[in-house]
Amino acid sequence: MSERNDVLIGRKPVMNYVLACITLFHGGANEIAVKARGRAISRAVDVVEVVRRRFMPDVKVKTIDIGTDQLPPREEGGSPSNVSTIEIKLAK
Amino acid sequence: MSERNDVLIGRKPVMNYVLACITLFHGGANEIAVKARGRAISRAVDVVEVVRRRFMPDVKVKTIDIGTDQLPPREEGGSPSNVSTIEIKLAK
Repeated sequence: MSERNDVLIGRKPVMNYVLACITLFHGGANEIAVKARGRAISRAVDVVEVVRRRFMPDVKVKTIDIGTDQLPPREEGGSPSNVSTIEIKLAK
Repeated sequence: MSERNDVLIGRKPVMNYVLACITLFHGGANEIAVKARGRAISRAVDVVEVVRRRFMPDVKVKTIDIGTDQLPPREEGGSPSNVSTIEIKLAK
């Protein structure tokens, strides 16, 4: 799957990302990946639920993977920190 | 699976829930369910990642399910609101 079919969840309102997902599907994508880390993980789940329940009931959750990314230290000599990640693949 | 093997994620620190998971496994559970809704979803993923990576590498993520719960209106005559949910089943 091309990275062009990824939707990276940040701090914008949920509906912005919902629109991004719908646009990808309407543009011909058969599968997209909704990705988030840290506190944006909850929003990623919101996005997927709104896409499926309100707009595209034919879209299915194909896989959900969670993991951990290591972030570089914020200051020199500090220790790296971990952040949780989620990747939700949707297919129609 | 008995509800006694559920860990409901709230607003406490991540390590409280990590300890709850470890205690269930050490008490003989072969499978537990980490459940959360709304903003606690990110914390649920943190809990699972810490359990697996730091304490119990033999524990696997068996299934991850997301969904939507409908909450009753906050005030009379208001409309119900939706909240996203996650359930992560862990097995050793």
